[in-house]
Amino acid sequence: MKILVCQTKPKVGDLEENYNSILRHYQSALNLNADICLFPELAISGYFAEDLFTQKNFLEDIQIKVTKLISITEHTCLLLPTPILEQNGLLYNGVIAAKHGKVIGLTYKHELPNYGIFDEKRYFTNGIPSIIIINDKKIGIPICEDIWFNKVCNNLKEQGAELFLVPNGSPYEKGKMQERVNIVKQRFNETQVPIIYCNQALGHDGIVFDGRSFCYDGEVKVIGKAFETDQQLVEIVDNKFRCTTTYDLNLNIYDEIFYAMVLGLRDYVLGNGFTKVILGLSGGIDSALVAVIAQKALGKENVTSYMLPSKFTSKESVEDAENIANNLNIIFKSIDISKIFESFLLTLDKDIPIKESSITFQNLQSRIRGTILMAKANETGSLLITTGNKSEYATGYATIYGDMNGAFNPIKDIYKTELYELVRHINKTMNVIPQRVITKAPTAELAPGQKDSDSLPEYPILDRIIEDHIENNLDQYELSKKYDSELVQRIVKMVRKAEFKRKQSAPGVKISKRNFEKERRFPITNLYK
Amino acid sequence: MKILVCQTKPKVGDLEENYNSILRHYQSALNLNADICLFPELAISGYFAEDLFTQKNFLEDIQIKVTKLISITEHTCLLLPTPILEQNGLLYNGVIAAKHGKVIGLTYKHELPNYGIFDEKRYFTNGIPSIIIINDKKIGIPICEDIWFNKVCNNLKEQGAELFLVPNGSPYEKGKMQERVNIVKQRFNETQVPIIYCNQALGHDGIVFDGRSFCYDGEVKVIGKAFETDQQLVEIVDNKFRCTTTYDLNLNIYDEIFYAMVLGLRDYVLGNGFTKVILGLSGGIDSALVAVIAQKALGKENVTSYMLPSKFTSKESVEDAENIANNLNIIFKSIDISKIFESFLLTLDKDIPIKESSITFQNLQSRIRGTILMAKANETGSLLITTGNKSEYATGYATIYGDMNGAFNPIKDIYKTELYELVRHINKTMNVIPQRVITKAPTAELAPGQKDSDSLPEYPILDRIIEDHIENNLDQYELSKKYDSELVQRIVKMVRKAEFKRKQSAPGVKISKRNFEKERRFPITNLYK
Repeated sequence: MKILVCQTKPKVGDLEENYNSILRHYQSALNLNADICLFPELAISGYFAEDLFTQKNFLEDIQIKVTKLISITEHTCLLLPTPILEQNGLLYNGVIAAKHGKVIGLTYKHELPNYGIFDEKRYFTNGIPSIIIINDKKIGIPICEDIWFNKVCNNLKEQGAELFLVPNGSPYEKGKMQERVNIVKQRFNETQVPIIYCNQALGHDGIVFDGRSFCYDGEVKVIGKAFETDQQLVEIVDNKFRCTTTYDLNLNIYDEIFYAMVLGLRDYVLGNGFTKVILGLSGGIDSALVAVIAQKALGKENVTSYMLPSKFTSKESVEDAENIANNLNIIFKSIDISKIFESFLLTLDKDIPIKESSITFQNLQSRIRGTILMAKANETGSLLITTGNKSEYATGYATIYGDMNGAFNPIKDIYKTELYELVRHINKTMNVIPQRVITKAPTAELAPGQKDSDSLPEYPILDRIIEDHIENNLDQYELSKKYDSELVQRIVKMVRKAEFKRKQSAPGVKISKRNFEKERRFPITNLYK
Repeated sequence: MKILVCQTKPKVGDLEENYNSILRHYQSALNLNADICLFPELAISGYFAEDLFTQKNFLEDIQIKVTKLISITEHTCLLLPTPILEQNGLLYNGVIAAKHGKVIGLTYKHELPNYGIFDEKRYFTNGIPSIIIINDKKIGIPICEDIWFNKVCNNLKEQGAELFLVPNGSPYEKGKMQERVNIVKQRFNETQVPIIYCNQALGHDGIVFDGRSFCYDGEVKVIGKAFETDQQLVEIVDNKFRCTTTYDLNLNIYDEIFYAMVLGLRDYVLGNGFTKVILGLSGGIDSALVAVIAQKALGKENVTSYMLPSKFTSKESVEDAENIANNLNIIFKSIDISKIFESFLLTLDKDIPIKESSITFQNLQSRIRGTILMAKANETGSLLITTGNKSEYATGYATIYGDMNGAFNPIKDIYKTELYELVRHINKTMNVIPQRVITKAPTAELAPGQKDSDSLPEYPILDRIIEDHIENNLDQYELSKKYDSELVQRIVKMVRKAEFKRKQSAPGVKISKRNFEKERRFPITNLYK
């Protein structure tokens, strides 16, 4: 039995494009004489369609495409993952099996994730999975979350399943690939049924699906590229898979993170109808990294960088910014904000004089820069990308309507210390970020002699506490057993107080176990200590 | 049998304050010799605690308070709505009944809303409701959503329920009160069991709980004040309720909306530790209304208004703004933005000259104003409140990082046409908004002779289409049957394209059937036509 595993890019709402993609792969499956053509979860609608799933015409338009796809099927069985609206008005997340122009089977997702970034119970009803017989073989189709628990697989095994084909919409996060393999291995050990895991490859509003489809027959073989669309014909003979190309199971963690950011940014920019981006380069490490990501994602000709110096900007920062831009071959412009800043101070001082180095004084510079960058974005039809890291967003060390301005933030979900590691890793192959950017002390340069460490604990300890707090969901009491309790209290309070900023922040690429957008959902008004 | 119905203000996370409030009401119930002391849903934790419900110490701290409350009970039965963490690790939304220091019963919410603004399946497991016998009477306790379907009430009736006590966390929206009464009437007609509906009264991140607790015994009696905390002793004799004070069932719709905005703003500002707010007054109707709301919510001494004129600001707008501030007795300041604007143009023109009246040119003025207001907010420790209406946010007719700046937006969920009606209504009693503000054509005054109608369809038709699209979830096809299809297409596209702005917008008071924050959840990257 031959299965064409199609690692596609189902774009949210783009029914025409998704339809065409499915059609192309299906033609290829026919040409390759495959028995089955397999796609990722919700391949026709896109996975994170949210409330589009409640719209009548969206579901009707999907049905039209599905009917057309069924009608063109020949001897290869098309396994088409799609929302299925039943006569009773309930919507299911399911798979339609079609052959020779007819539906030959139907199955439904049973486990609906409703935690983390997932809200499937908002849209779908859980269904009862059934095996589908294709060319005399009993195929079980656990859909995504179904494979994470033993219930569905055991049930399909009882129904006689000889092969599991798993359509997925499995978002990237650090270490996720190994988790997937472990869980699939577990299902295999319980059932002895060989498994093909078919993932998608795209970025959608910062959620990245990293591809890396694989099969497992007692041994793991990665059959889909990482962070790219792909297809591969897999043959199963005597319960063992044969395939022509395999990929490394383990990527370097920083390569993984970097590719995720690149794909996340690219698909956000292009998916929203833009090709060009702009960003502010401060000479610091965060914006330097974002420039590298942008250049990689969109091409050097599509990235314009702005250095926006004030009297607090060091000569070194200006040099470093320009060097970064030159190393990346991206456009570099410098606009001095001093005159505008003076003009604000003159105007505002008439009312209440603004104290030098006060928060107001600092934020004002950041907001002037944000306003200039938005003017440039408006003027050139570019997207402004923003450059705050997770340590800053956790503690609120960022200016809302200032440096937080922007449509997208590739580095939103990595900690400052992690970012340094990533930059060191990138430099090993590309060597684009000047050494001084890595070694100098972090500073916002909004007041004379300012350092991040004036306002924040040192990053190594800060990041460990935040990571335990956010990602591992440790509360103040638990944290106080591991760290200095005064420091813990200070940081937990900072995190709570910054919720209003994060609620108004740009989306960013999910990298960690728990990101700040859809995944960690906290009230703004929160009086819990 | 006497029941003290306590319409409290359960603040999210404020366990100490919620505990004290429950204690005070319970003491009062004892003094009144009540049989039962009834509270709203999740009275100890607050309703929209979101991911706090996943935090171990939050649940433990709740348990400590619950244990203390149980221990102090005497002959009055305390019905305490609280999250209940069972030994199996599952969390329920339930009610504990306690008397003479002991738990005498326990019941669980069965219907968990997971649509609209609700995500209860993210946190809670649905439980099986049981009746609780209190002073020989069989009490059924359907919790909030349980009353909206007949399943739980029928089941409790079969268990012998003689009285339904319903703890609620029922958010305000236009017309909601009548809906509640209708549904309760239906449950009564099905079961013949008298019902007390106990709601909470507070604003939380823009969701307003409007109080108005009521009872139904074949006839409706409103026993709790609108938009305020309250308590009332209700006696039930021969299946009929007796109470001392009743309130109007039907409020004027504009009074209702206004009170909701006032409470929503007040509780947001105070709940986040602020007392003072600032806002920009443009001389237009939106900011005029927000000034009225702010003055009512926080007191005239806590509201500072800024007129920020440019050369495009008319003399009339300056006069109108000042008159509004004078009528409301709030602080008024004027800061001319011309010098700052010129300075931006001078600096930016060195790179690419900015065309007069271009979008860049217009947005720049709005962002200068936003930056000045944030400087004032930072300097005075005030919250900036923002003033865009739903028509603007739907179509994207607002400047991100400009006039969208602010922590909270009281008028975010009402249409421009509705806003005019509201202002006319307010003027009937307060007469604070100059007639000219109501009669002049809406304009952003960012370019010479500019009118809203240059960029937007006329508000009366625009608002009807948006309302059908957003609130009634009509799609493009359905809308085209009712309205001009080209206009529909244009508007639907505007709504889709503005998603990125709304995602970064300040929270606002929910007034409509479907607001733009937690309720209508759309992807930013959305290629559906």
